Amino acid sequence: MTTVKAFGATSATDPLTPLSITRRAVGPRDVNIAIRYAGICHSDIHTLREEWGPLTFPQVVGHEIVGEVVEVGPEVTRHAVGDRVGVGCMVNSCRECEQCQAGNEHYCLNGNTQTYGSVDRDGSITQGGYSTHVVVDEDFVLTVPEALPYESAAPLLCAGITTYSPLRRWQAGPGTKVAVVGLGGLGHMAVKIAVAMGAEVTTISRTASKQEDALAFGATRHVATGEDGALESLRGSFDLIINTVSAPLDMDAYLAALAPEGSLINVGAPPQPLPVSVFSLIIGGRTFAGSNIGSIAETQEMLDFCAEHDISPETELISAEQINEAYERVLSSDVRYRFVIDTATL
Amino acid sequence: MTTVKAFGATSATDPLTPLSITRRAVGPRDVNIAIRYAGICHSDIHTLREEWGPLTFPQVVGHEIVGEVVEVGPEVTRHAVGDRVGVGCMVNSCRECEQCQAGNEHYCLNGNTQTYGSVDRDGSITQGGYSTHVVVDEDFVLTVPEALPYESAAPLLCAGITTYSPLRRWQAGPGTKVAVVGLGGLGHMAVKIAVAMGAEVTTISRTASKQEDALAFGATRHVATGEDGALESLRGSFDLIINTVSAPLDMDAYLAALAPEGSLINVGAPPQPLPVSVFSLIIGGRTFAGSNIGSIAETQEMLDFCAEHDISPETELISAEQINEAYERVLSSDVRYRFVIDTATL
Repeated sequence: MTTVKAFGATSATDPLTPLSITRRAVGPRDVNIAIRYAGICHSDIHTLREEWGPLTFPQVVGHEIVGEVVEVGPEVTRHAVGDRVGVGCMVNSCRECEQCQAGNEHYCLNGNTQTYGSVDRDGSITQGGYSTHVVVDEDFVLTVPEALPYESAAPLLCAGITTYSPLRRWQAGPGTKVAVVGLGGLGHMAVKIAVAMGAEVTTISRTASKQEDALAFGATRHVATGEDGALESLRGSFDLIINTVSAPLDMDAYLAALAPEGSLINVGAPPQPLPVSVFSLIIGGRTFAGSNIGSIAETQEMLDFCAEHDISPETELISAEQINEAYERVLSSDVRYRFVIDTATL
Repeated sequence: MTTVKAFGATSATDPLTPLSITRRAVGPRDVNIAIRYAGICHSDIHTLREEWGPLTFPQVVGHEIVGEVVEVGPEVTRHAVGDRVGVGCMVNSCRECEQCQAGNEHYCLNGNTQTYGSVDRDGSITQGGYSTHVVVDEDFVLTVPEALPYESAAPLLCAGITTYSPLRRWQAGPGTKVAVVGLGGLGHMAVKIAVAMGAEVTTISRTASKQEDALAFGATRHVATGEDGALESLRGSFDLIINTVSAPLDMDAYLAALAPEGSLINVGAPPQPLPVSVFSLIIGGRTFAGSNIGSIAETQEMLDFCAEHDISPETELISAEQINEAYERVLSSDVRYRFVIDTATL
C-alpha cells in the first residue's frame, strides 16, 4: 500500500481540498499508473454532492484518467512500464456473468466496480483520478495511441465512449441525419465523432451562442430552441438524436423530430422521471433509449478511432487549486468544453 | 356509388344501430369486396367514443375485414373476382413521399388514409368494415391464403400485424426471451406468433386467470403481477417485451425486467403520458419504443406466415345485434380473445 497525493471532498457540502489517499500494493495482474491528466465530468459533481445517492467520505473522484505505466505485476501481459495508458469509468467487474463473458463489462450482472465511489473487491472504496497515481487491473487499462496527446485523451475515457457507443450501435454514418442536443463536454464529442463517422449533423441547444463552434466541429446546422417554432420546424428530420442534456426536456417534442423508425438516445441523466406520450413512440415506430459508456473493447476501439480521425476534445487545462471554481463553471455551462486537471499541480 | 348495409354510430354516446352508407363507384384500380367477417378492435371503441379526437357521424368502424372480391376495375392486376382478400387499417396513402416509395405506407409522410374516420381523396369520410361491402384501391387489398379460414383471418389484419411487426423488427426467434404483457386480442396473437418464430415466451398479466390459455398458446410461463414481488422477480429477464396494455403501467418496473440492451415495445396506447426514469434506460442500454401496424408488404408476409405456421386467433363469432354488448365485454376484458362479426347478419 502506498500513500499518494489527491484532491477530494470530505463532505457533500464543503469545497474539495488536497488529501492523501492510499493505493493498494500492485497485485500480480495490476498496473500502477502515474496519472498525468484527469478530466472533470459532470458526474463527478453529482456524485460528490450525493445527488445520486449517499457516499463515504473522504472521496476522490475523476474517471477520465491518462498517464504512464510505472509498475506492473508479474502476470501482466497487456501493458509495460512506460506505456501510455488510460482508465475510464470502470476498474473491475465479476468476469463470470453472461455479460462479462460476452465482453460487456459495462453490463456486468453482478455490478461492475466503478472507478470511484464503488466497493472494491477488498472492501475499500475506490478513489478516482484527481490523484497522482492509481492501481488498476490490467484488463481495465486502455492503451492511448501515440497520435493522441495525453491531455486530449483524458476526456475520451468518459465523454468519448459515452457518445461513441450509441452512435455506433444506432449506426450513424454516411446518409444518416444525426442531431446532438446540448453542446457541452459530451455534446461536442458527439458532434466530432458523428461527423467523422460520415453522418450529417445538426446541433440543438437553447441559444445560438455555440453556433460558430458547432459548425467548426463539423455540424452543418445549429438550431436554437429558444427561438419560436424552432423545434417544431424539425418534425420528422432525424434518424438519430443523441440527447446529452441532464435537465428535463419535452421528450415528446424531441421524439417528434425523429423520422419514422428514428431513435432518440439519452446519455444525459435527468434525476426526475420524464413524461412520455406513448403515441409519440407508436406513431412512426420511434425509439427512446439510453446508453451508458461502453465495454472495454469498445472504449479501445473509440480511442483508436479518434486517433485515426484526428479527433480531440476541446480542453481547458487547470491546476488543482482551480477545481472548485471549475465545478461552478461546469454547473453554469461556462466551459468550452472540458476541464482537464494537470496532476503535476496536486 | 352504391348503398350498402352497415352497423354504426350516430353519436359518440348512443349505441350502434343499423345504417345505410354509400360506397364509391368502382374506379379503374379499385376492388369491390363482399365482406364476410369483420373483427372488433378496441380502437373501434376508442374512435367512436371520440376518445382519440372528434369524429364526423354517422360513422362505421372496423379495420379487420375479410371477404370475397365481387368486382374489379379495368386496371386491376393484383386481384380477381372470387379471390379471398382482406383489408386492414389503411386504404390508401400518398404513394409519393419517401416513406411510401420505400414501401412504408404506414409511415406515409402526408398521412395515410385510415380504413375509417379518415378523409378520403374525394373528401368523403372513410367508413369501416361493419358493413356488407367495401371498395378499396387494389394496392391496399391483401390476399388471404387458402389455409386461413376467413373467420380466423379477420383479426390478423390488425391484431396480427400489430404484434408481428415488432416481433420481426426486434428479432424474436430461437434463443430470444420474449415477454408479452396483457393477454387480450393483441396479446394472445403476440404469444402465438412469437412462439412460431421460435422464441421462449412468458406471459404477464394481473391475474392467473388466463394462465392455462397462455400455456396452451405456447408460452412456457405465466406471471401474475398481482402477486407480491412477481414483477421484481423478473429483473433482467427478457430480450424483448411486447406491451399490449392500453392502461398506464409502471414502465420503470417493466424496463427493469429487460436484460441489457433489451427492448420494451408498446403496442398498447394509454392516452395519458407515462413517467419514465431515464436511468431505467441508461443502465443496461435499454430501449422503450412503440410500434404501429406494419406496411402492406409486411401485412401480406404476416398472413403468409400465419398460414404456414397454422396460426389462428381465438375468436367468438357474433351477429350484428350483439355488437353493443360485445363492446361492453371488450371494455371489461371479457373476451377470449377477439369478437368477429358475421356480416351476413347485418
